[in-house]
Amino acid sequence: MTRKEHDFIGELELPDDIYYGVQTYRALNNFKMTGHRFKDYPLFVKAFAQVKKAAAKANAEVGVLDKDKAKALCGAADKVIKGQFADQFVVDMIQGGAGTSTNMNMNEVLVNVALEGMKHKKGEYQYLHPNDHANLGQSTNDTYPSSIKVASVYYLTDLKKALEDLKDALKKRAKEFKEIIKMGRTELEDAVPTTLGNTFNAFASFIDSDIDHVEKACKLMTVLNLGATAIGTGINCHPDYSKAVIKHLSEITGVKFSNAKDLIAATQDTADYVTVSATLRTLAVHLCKIANDLRLMNSGPRCGLGEIDLPKMQPGSSIMPGKVNPVIPEVTLEACYQVMGNDLTITLCAERGEFELNAVEPGIAYALFNSLNLITNAVITINKYAVAGLKPRAEDCLKSVLNSVGIVTAFNPYLGYEKSASIAKEALQTGKAVGDICLERGYMSKDQIDKLLEPKNMLNPHMTQKREG
Amino acid sequence: MTRKEHDFIGELELPDDIYYGVQTYRALNNFKMTGHRFKDYPLFVKAFAQVKKAAAKANAEVGVLDKDKAKALCGAADKVIKGQFADQFVVDMIQGGAGTSTNMNMNEVLVNVALEGMKHKKGEYQYLHPNDHANLGQSTNDTYPSSIKVASVYYLTDLKKALEDLKDALKKRAKEFKEIIKMGRTELEDAVPTTLGNTFNAFASFIDSDIDHVEKACKLMTVLNLGATAIGTGINCHPDYSKAVIKHLSEITGVKFSNAKDLIAATQDTADYVTVSATLRTLAVHLCKIANDLRLMNSGPRCGLGEIDLPKMQPGSSIMPGKVNPVIPEVTLEACYQVMGNDLTITLCAERGEFELNAVEPGIAYALFNSLNLITNAVITINKYAVAGLKPRAEDCLKSVLNSVGIVTAFNPYLGYEKSASIAKEALQTGKAVGDICLERGYMSKDQIDKLLEPKNMLNPHMTQKREG
Amino acid sequence: MTRKEHDFIGELELPDDIYYGVQTYRALNNFKMTGHRFKDYPLFVKAFAQVKKAAAKANAEVGVLDKDKAKALCGAADKVIKGQFADQFVVDMIQGGAGTSTNMNMNEVLVNVALEGMKHKKGEYQYLHPNDHANLGQSTNDTYPSSIKVASVYYLTDLKKALEDLKDALKKRAKEFKEIIKMGRTELEDAVPTTLGNTFNAFASFIDSDIDHVEKACKLMTVLNLGATAIGTGINCHPDYSKAVIKHLSEITGVKFSNAKDLIAATQDTADYVTVSATLRTLAVHLCKIANDLRLMNSGPRCGLGEIDLPKMQPGSSIMPGKVNPVIPEVTLEACYQVMGNDLTITLCAERGEFELNAVEPGIAYALFNSLNLITNAVITINKYAVAGLKPRAEDCLKSVLNSVGIVTAFNPYLGYEKSASIAKEALQTGKAVGDICLERGYMSKDQIDKLLEPKNMLNPHMTQKREG
Amino acid sequence: MTRKEHDFIGELELPDDIYYGVQTYRALNNFKMTGHRFKDYPLFVKAFAQVKKAAAKANAEVGVLDKDKAKALCGAADKVIKGQFADQFVVDMIQGGAGTSTNMNMNEVLVNVALEGMKHKKGEYQYLHPNDHANLGQSTNDTYPSSIKVASVYYLTDLKKALEDLKDALKKRAKEFKEIIKMGRTELEDAVPTTLGNTFNAFASFIDSDIDHVEKACKLMTVLNLGATAIGTGINCHPDYSKAVIKHLSEITGVKFSNAKDLIAATQDTADYVTVSATLRTLAVHLCKIANDLRLMNSGPRCGLGEIDLPKMQPGSSIMPGKVNPVIPEVTLEACYQVMGNDLTITLCAERGEFELNAVEPGIAYALFNSLNLITNAVITINKYAVAGLKPRAEDCLKSVLNSVGIVTAFNPYLGYEKSASIAKEALQTGKAVGDICLERGYMSKDQIDKLLEPKNMLNPHMTQKREG
Repeated sequence: MTRKEHDFIGELELPDDIYYGVQTYRALNNFKMTGHRFKDYPLFVKAFAQVKKAAAKANAEVGVLDKDKAKALCGAADKVIKGQFADQFVVDMIQGGAGTSTNMNMNEVLVNVALEGMKHKKGEYQYLHPNDHANLGQSTNDTYPSSIKVASVYYLTDLKKALEDLKDALKKRAKEFKEIIKMGRTELEDAVPTTLGNTFNAFASFIDSDIDHVEKACKLMTVLNLGATAIGTGINCHPDYSKAVIKHLSEITGVKFSNAKDLIAATQDTADYVTVSATLRTLAVHLCKIANDLRLMNSGPRCGLGEIDLPKMQPGSSIMPGKVNPVIPEVTLEACYQVMGNDLTITLCAERGEFELNAVEPGIAYALFNSLNLITNAVITINKYAVAGLKPRAEDCLKSVLNSVGIVTAFNPYLGYEKSASIAKEALQTGKAVGDICLERGYMSKDQIDKLLEPKNMLNPHMTQKREG
Repeated sequence: MTRKEHDFIGELELPDDIYYGVQTYRALNNFKMTGHRFKDYPLFVKAFAQVKKAAAKANAEVGVLDKDKAKALCGAADKVIKGQFADQFVVDMIQGGAGTSTNMNMNEVLVNVALEGMKHKKGEYQYLHPNDHANLGQSTNDTYPSSIKVASVYYLTDLKKALEDLKDALKKRAKEFKEIIKMGRTELEDAVPTTLGNTFNAFASFIDSDIDHVEKACKLMTVLNLGATAIGTGINCHPDYSKAVIKHLSEITGVKFSNAKDLIAATQDTADYVTVSATLRTLAVHLCKIANDLRLMNSGPRCGLGEIDLPKMQPGSSIMPGKVNPVIPEVTLEACYQVMGNDLTITLCAERGEFELNAVEPGIAYALFNSLNLITNAVITINKYAVAGLKPRAEDCLKSVLNSVGIVTAFNPYLGYEKSASIAKEALQTGKAVGDICLERGYMSKDQIDKLLEPKNMLNPHMTQKREG
Repeated sequence: MTRKEHDFIGELELPDDIYYGVQTYRALNNFKMTGHRFKDYPLFVKAFAQVKKAAAKANAEVGVLDKDKAKALCGAADKVIKGQFADQFVVDMIQGGAGTSTNMNMNEVLVNVALEGMKHKKGEYQYLHPNDHANLGQSTNDTYPSSIKVASVYYLTDLKKALEDLKDALKKRAKEFKEIIKMGRTELEDAVPTTLGNTFNAFASFIDSDIDHVEKACKLMTVLNLGATAIGTGINCHPDYSKAVIKHLSEITGVKFSNAKDLIAATQDTADYVTVSATLRTLAVHLCKIANDLRLMNSGPRCGLGEIDLPKMQPGSSIMPGKVNPVIPEVTLEACYQVMGNDLTITLCAERGEFELNAVEPGIAYALFNSLNLITNAVITINKYAVAGLKPRAEDCLKSVLNSVGIVTAFNPYLGYEKSASIAKEALQTGKAVGDICLERGYMSKDQIDKLLEPKNMLNPHMTQKREG
Repeated sequence: MTRKEHDFIGELELPDDIYYGVQTYRALNNFKMTGHRFKDYPLFVKAFAQVKKAAAKANAEVGVLDKDKAKALCGAADKVIKGQFADQFVVDMIQGGAGTSTNMNMNEVLVNVALEGMKHKKGEYQYLHPNDHANLGQSTNDTYPSSIKVASVYYLTDLKKALEDLKDALKKRAKEFKEIIKMGRTELEDAVPTTLGNTFNAFASFIDSDIDHVEKACKLMTVLNLGATAIGTGINCHPDYSKAVIKHLSEITGVKFSNAKDLIAATQDTADYVTVSATLRTLAVHLCKIANDLRLMNSGPRCGLGEIDLPKMQPGSSIMPGKVNPVIPEVTLEACYQVMGNDLTITLCAERGEFELNAVEPGIAYALFNSLNLITNAVITINKYAVAGLKPRAEDCLKSVLNSVGIVTAFNPYLGYEKSASIAKEALQTGKAVGDICLERGYMSKDQIDKLLEPKNMLNPHMTQKREG
């Protein structure tokens, strides 16, 4: 069974079981690019349907759309929002036309679903039209970016939740590890003592700042350009529509959205996506730092630093029996590097706008959603499979500190930098302990030395004596 | 129905209809990242199965694997190469463990397929073992990168074919457009005349150089590290295996492969992927140039440059009737920017190797295959839907040239730069034609002027007179 | 004349006229990299001297540094802050050691300047020591990043000022151009009318959002880690020092600084630099958009869009007389692309931290200061030499609009998308005006048509009629 | 003393002691961007003067330039080539106008130097003109890119020399370290034994492949577009000029240059710079790998891997006495990350070409020369200050291996993967040696075990027995 549809390019015969129409059909043929489709991003489908529902309500409210048409469209949108007809959203995520194919895919599916609800046949657009009704008072250029932003709010909300869980887990571990003294290292070289608690607390501080940035990014994404239509001037939309559609969208989604003050700027500007992506990139920098420190602390088991044991997730090698690898930090790195690559893609697309629109916004949507999805998975994974279950090797950690030269730093305020350096030099050449050398040289009494070299005493500021000279 | 399998982490119960085993099963759980799976990259599955087949043959040949086991493994590999059991390759493309999960996914599926062929049950590894036989004399660290490279050769071969088609099409159009004189522009400003043929010929020259680079990249990918095993020392593999496996792989694939001279370097080095990706990036720079010039020449239809008409692929706007957009050049840009982003990802991963291996090589494989796939699609698409069908607006092109000021450059060798500049200045201020001003000022005769300003005469070097002074 | 100095590596003979000492001297030899030196970044020298002055005051206040030594150090710092001894800050901006050479360059110069003030000779460190006194209670690992941040505040303040000037200029031009109707374009294709005022107003909106982001970035840079010493535990510094040094630094600079809550995290974390750089990158995206739109509008003079004339800054060609190029937008693009490159550098460096410190922070400082300097120059330049003096070609702009097909969009709410598209199609095929076709077809009266096609009426939302059907 | 000069923008008064003229003077004012000037890149000044000399000779040869003018220009060029008048090349490296200011800076200086040689005054362009004679038959659009390429050949030649030195040094150390057995590590985890010789040999293999790539890059840079003039059509240049200028340039430089087959493509295409930059990026990936492995092997001295001691270049800390940091590998990383950032800049600029020219080529030249300079310095530095002087800790290396679990891999071909894994598991849980467990379990005789566990026997492929089963 087929039906015929036409657009101003011409007429096409379509299989009649599909809910999308001629414009989607053309797009399917034109854009065989990533193989990743609109439907693979269900939050985006949901967001777009919500925007369309809000538009229908607003158009009815301001009096330019028949109530029954509006109702039919809203009913269709509700089904899509619930996840029905998911397989009908078929256009490739990257596409020319600034998202027109995605917008028309949504318009066509909604209209055909609605037509069936109205007891018409699919394709009988004389009763309800993809452009004249589903897209009434709208343009791709306002609904497409607005839908990206609504979806981004959903993604960022999920990410924030995952980050809060990770922060809590890190704080919990930090508390557990408060007393575990370990060597502090700068530039991979032995420095002065710290605790494993400090380490995990610092990780938590990183994530805490990321949560703050994610909240700000989410805020940016609540500013839309609905009512801008083609270029921001609002041509072909009712003067009261813009306010109404924002109100309805906020109600439908439960998120407080608003419109940009300058709709013309908002329609052509994609820089906010770059800022959101930069937020993910900063988070990626933090996750990489955590992943790499975990990998280094876990290195060994016998020929490495051996400060912690990550949970054993799977055999580490197809050839080396018993080998276990830090696979979770590793996959975290891979996710982060993909996010950094996508961040470049987003920047390149954003930089390529001309005049009243950025034609390559679909390239942004694709990379941004991939990044959001991937980094959220990475945060959940590193939490669940690395942070939660890792075990410290407390004894080994302490042994390292006591054996180190870096603790000579504690003598610094009492002996000065040069004498302390000379002790360090001798220790490194002879293998002796720094305390012994200090005692031999008669610089301080054993008691003084022991007190200074007690690792716990090096964990906080405490120079109360004034140095002579 | 379930079966039990164990590895040294412990025992697991698996559904009995799956051909993969315990290690793949763990990986499925550990790595929920991109949602894009091994099976979504059929060229990679094929390449990996070919490597395994070559290994089985080589092991049999050097006498460390029973002939019947080898035969069973080869039979299983052949089925996979043909595309059977495709749905069994399920691990996420990005994963920790440097590709161990992908390698074990292949080992487990091959072994279970082979076991059934041997009239055993899936999981009866006492008869044929994923590690001891399918992976015999191998490691993830040699088979995984080698399989990436075999697959890359396939991808690059497809890409080369697409580029040759594009070059031919561009050359064909160049010949058709040889006589179409148009304004040459530098820095978007009117310069001196050229032809549309020159423009398309230059595009063909770009692609020609890319074909050359792709060939070189393909060559790099034929150098493998089979027999390196864990770290390149060849531990646990038969001294004659390395040579044998390369021979068999070359036979199986019909591609001439060789092993790196320094297997230790080859096992830890991922820089060749960066070079391949850089090749795609350079191609992307060229495609962007072509896409952007097409967009600019197509701009209009009435308020732009209007030098060509791209084929009308789909309605351009959900709100502006009759609008047609250059969707094919646009989607080309998006593909190119994703390739550039992936290129950064690949570089970041490559930079993150330590010691005898690069742990994040799966991040490279994922981004590289995505780029190869995407840019090949872009090349095919721009050829088919833009280059092949575009139409020049020859008359408008010529009118522009005749109306331009830039043609004053032709006076330069005869009048000198300063007088010519003064003519240009007057033309711009008054709107007059440069030839008329030259005549008014009595600098040259009408005949001389006409000859110099004949656009055709500006298309080649031809200053035969010596300038006085 | 020479003097001898030693450190624990050994003794060196130095020319006696230099104020820096043995450690700087070694660094000069070790790091011959960019050729760009500490002294080439006077805001950084000033910031670092201010940090050292604050430290001396704080140490004196908490009682660990003699008042006269503190006074001598402060006096030396004041001279450096004023710009004296500028040529003594000689270390290469990129260097190993996480900034130790820069810190020691400052410590050594301050001490030697101070020693001369104390009537001692340079190098008589028994009276005042670079490590024991100038660096007292400090480490490179707190003073170096803190000084980068203080300098960044200065740079960002200059940038903000430049952005405010640019925004004002854009707003001024927007007001002047309010009535100049021009073609709006999406995807480089004729869309619907806008005004040149709208265009410049949108540019101003971009910059307005950048000012907001720059303010936030500046805020991030006021959070320091003074008192953290080596790794954030505050080893070797007086418990009251941290609070005191922040107080003094805020007084000295007139900027309100604070310390991070988690000094351990703050000492190892460089992600805030990535955020600042991302802010510059977003600004760069906006500047590129502005620069490219200016270049496109300026294209011609006869074979381009020809909507504006940029100020003629210099002859545009060594061969084409009279040619003038949009050199200011072009150099703006170059600056922006360098900023984007530096942004990657900063991200790569930030991602490379391990444990308690990021060893490659000097790579960040170098790239960040270069970006800050460059983008501020770009903002000033595009304002002064492009925005301020450009002239619209108002008549040509209007002519384009009246000649366009895109204005058919205005019929859409009254005729529906399909009829309007059919008019557009005929117009494009025949060259006729859309109004004439509409009249011929009898769709509307001449009055109605004229009113709808009046460009001014397309500049705002105004669909008050409900569409039939 | 001043002189007056004019161009078609107007007249300017210049100080008479400067050799550059009005166009350079305007550029100085227009482009206050990086502060880095043409003169800071002496290889570029030399290359550009050589191109101009070749052009003068060619123009004389083909009969369009008076012999005495040519001679005067050649004499001036020779002085500049020798390094005289170096301070006259003052334009900012980044600039609008596609390099016109750099070209005119060269033209003006050459002409004024030549005029003085001809006993005229500076500025008496009636006798010798910057455009009509110094630029005769030329355009910025052919001389500027050609000069960049000539300079790149010089830079790449220096780089190649530095790489060959580094490779030799690495090979020398590899030979010295041939017998030093150390733990091989994959994913930072203990794997199987290798030697320090293998490690350095692999480093040498990396550099060897880079030398190959640098040679290819150098080759790309010998293809010029002289005679292309404005847009590649050769307008205003003598038909025989192109061949002549290449011949003279090859003679003058001693390097074999040629012209591109398609001068139009060559004039607008900047992709070869991207390829050259990608070559530097691949080298950077290798240098980072080497630098990071050195840092990791050097980590300690007591709480790290402690496999080597890098030369002590300078005190490592302003607060921790005796601390020495791996400053040379660190600064190498910083240089590499700047090169990677510049690589992005170059790609962004290359992607921004339109029509017959890339306007932002100066952005490429700046970033490319900076990268070439920086990476050459990095190669020299890491060789001289790290590779040449580092010392292995052979005993510690061996002790690690003997203590490791990873050597259980050697049992694999004899016991199978599962039994070996079980031994490993017990070893990790109990701390026992793997050999002892194997003996206890009675799997093999002591002799067999000792032979298998002899580290030397693990360094090469040697599985000669067929496994049972």
